[in-house]
Amino acid sequence: MSILKGAALVGQSGGPTAAINATLAGVIKGCIENPDAITKLYGMRNGIEGFIAERTIDLSEMFECEKGVADEEKLCLLSQTPAAALGSCRKKLPKPAEDKAFFDNLIKLFKKYDIRYFFYIGGNDSMDTVAKLTEYLKGCDYEMRVMGVPKTIDNDLAGTDHTPGFGSAAKYIAATVSEIIRDCAVYTVPAVTIVEIMGRDAGWLTASAGLPALVGRPAPDYIYLPEVAFSMDKFIEDVKKALTVHPNVVIAVSEGVRDENGKYAGESAQSGVTDAFGHKYLSGTGKALEMAVKAAIGCKVRSVELNISQRCAAHLQSAADILESRGVGAAAAAAAVSGKTGCMMAMERAEGEYKITFAAKEIAGIANAVRSVPRSMINEEGNNVTDECLNYIMPLIQGECENKYENGLPVHMVF
Amino acid sequence: MSILKGAALVGQSGGPTAAINATLAGVIKGCIENPDAITKLYGMRNGIEGFIAERTIDLSEMFECEKGVADEEKLCLLSQTPAAALGSCRKKLPKPAEDKAFFDNLIKLFKKYDIRYFFYIGGNDSMDTVAKLTEYLKGCDYEMRVMGVPKTIDNDLAGTDHTPGFGSAAKYIAATVSEIIRDCAVYTVPAVTIVEIMGRDAGWLTASAGLPALVGRPAPDYIYLPEVAFSMDKFIEDVKKALTVHPNVVIAVSEGVRDENGKYAGESAQSGVTDAFGHKYLSGTGKALEMAVKAAIGCKVRSVELNISQRCAAHLQSAADILESRGVGAAAAAAAVSGKTGCMMAMERAEGEYKITFAAKEIAGIANAVRSVPRSMINEEGNNVTDECLNYIMPLIQGECENKYENGLPVHMVF
Repeated sequence: MSILKGAALVGQSGGPTAAINATLAGVIKGCIENPDAITKLYGMRNGIEGFIAERTIDLSEMFECEKGVADEEKLCLLSQTPAAALGSCRKKLPKPAEDKAFFDNLIKLFKKYDIRYFFYIGGNDSMDTVAKLTEYLKGCDYEMRVMGVPKTIDNDLAGTDHTPGFGSAAKYIAATVSEIIRDCAVYTVPAVTIVEIMGRDAGWLTASAGLPALVGRPAPDYIYLPEVAFSMDKFIEDVKKALTVHPNVVIAVSEGVRDENGKYAGESAQSGVTDAFGHKYLSGTGKALEMAVKAAIGCKVRSVELNISQRCAAHLQSAADILESRGVGAAAAAAAVSGKTGCMMAMERAEGEYKITFAAKEIAGIANAVRSVPRSMINEEGNNVTDECLNYIMPLIQGECENKYENGLPVHMVF
Repeated sequence: MSILKGAALVGQSGGPTAAINATLAGVIKGCIENPDAITKLYGMRNGIEGFIAERTIDLSEMFECEKGVADEEKLCLLSQTPAAALGSCRKKLPKPAEDKAFFDNLIKLFKKYDIRYFFYIGGNDSMDTVAKLTEYLKGCDYEMRVMGVPKTIDNDLAGTDHTPGFGSAAKYIAATVSEIIRDCAVYTVPAVTIVEIMGRDAGWLTASAGLPALVGRPAPDYIYLPEVAFSMDKFIEDVKKALTVHPNVVIAVSEGVRDENGKYAGESAQSGVTDAFGHKYLSGTGKALEMAVKAAIGCKVRSVELNISQRCAAHLQSAADILESRGVGAAAAAAAVSGKTGCMMAMERAEGEYKITFAAKEIAGIANAVRSVPRSMINEEGNNVTDECLNYIMPLIQGECENKYENGLPVHMVF
């Protein structure tokens, strides 16, 4: 195959994570180190939305220290910076068949900047963008290679063993819930603490709260995931039972738990607002459970939302996650240069000892599919996860990053 | 002075911190390394309440590797463990004049275990215990030396430059708010993020959110402390003004902000419950401000409670704080052995370059006094802190601890 020569364009989309910039660093390194094919690397500010407004940034200039060599120190600083450094967007592209004008305009812009490589780092909705662009390009006479690079703390992307960003979020959650359990243990008065964890449809993040149990350390008494129908009555029964065993009961609950009719536990406290993709906006699940315990049991009870730190606590990145996040970005660049297009760069786990390899997979069939926690990874009662689940997650939180601090604060790269 | 020989007793009381076990480690080391005076060290489980029930633990046995030598590895593990390892309580002692029987029973127990040294690690309410015990002992024929050892994330204890535990909480808050600011910066839609920070009467913790500004890094647009009367109208005006400058406005607000009549901003969302010391139980200040912004401005708005991680996030301890926390514990033991009693071990800051020395100060006058942020450390408008304030806090968050991890999780010592 002849080498496709031209500029590359990279963007970040969807919710931030603690590792999405590590993936950007990987793409940057992969592009800079392929100078025979990639002549220049642009970053789009605020994803595809910013690119349409021609808001770009010259990443080659910023990160190339000499032709074909990326500045490793800067890449490290970028990797330890939380939240999309290029900015993000939540723009949903129209269907190619329904808005030809939109895509023609995009192609015009690609031509203007001689963009021949397109990398989009994101979750489900971003892979939808990659799929649509791929579909449209098939009927065009413009050659451009399009690669999706996964990221999401939710770990709900299909076609990959797990997603970059999930490991760091899982580590943050497991460590923080461990600390909360210590905090709860200091008093002798019966008390229930409910920790609300992110995850609308997939319970992977909430499941991570159970990791300490796998190594014999204190973990939440119960873990409730959105994959199993939630019953408030059963929940109250569970809590009462735990209170007979010890005074400090800790619960991990996914924001997305709902009953058998699909009604969210926190729905009473909802605004009913939906985002551009039609997702219901959730909050207040922990609060709803707190009020239920207060009413039914009457003991001391509080709820804690781990909130946005779950996706931006770069100060507690998982070294395994950061290594893989950088790796998947660099692999996406290498795959595109070698001829791949219309793919997402996936991670595959070997049997036996933990080992990950990267593989480009057709984007069709990946976009818009949601990978939930399988029923086999949840206990029979539906109030905890199994060791199979924890064994799957455990390798992803291994290792600590030696991030750079200045003046007692972690250094972030802002551009 | 002749050496007072006997056992020592140490307890922890009040809310947990990320450094209270470092102070315990300091007391343990100080006691073990004074074997000529201190024959044995007991820990009281759940503070004075547990001691009354004779729930003690033999700390000498646990931490002494040979006569007069403490096991440094164990002390390090203890120091990186969040939340009172001995357990805590919120018991308020009666006044000595009003309940002689209570104190006589205590003295009987001290005699039973030959307790000659009493160390109590805690905040304002714990210093109240130290003061009352000191007062009662004056009229007794039982010789026992009583020392208060400060801890509180609130930094509101009088008589000391700052309190052990505050530096780690401040570091956690400054780093986490920095990450939240990065997270908020990724979208271009106008949005207000309100971060609610602990601090009922003293704004030190909330002030810490401003630390990045001192070194030219992004910090919250406004910081509201309980020391200045809060006006919801002025707050809305401030937010509107900030939104004209940039789309992502971040606010740090103390849970304890109240108007000129003393009405808490979050009072509508309060349960009205008070704790054993008559403190009002607060929550929902951020929520109240969120609703006010939604009603008055109508833009995207969310509130984030940093919650209990502020006091238990040992994974982001300040090295300076841990060093001082251990130091103050060891100094308290040394001071008691050398004859001090009825004192709190305070920290004094030298002029010029940052340097701390320890000094035993009379407990009378310290207990129950609250040290707030002085008006001179708050800007004229009352919506931010001054550089004087940040310069005071900055040395306390310096340095990172190389804590031990196993299986990707920070190790905690549980006993």
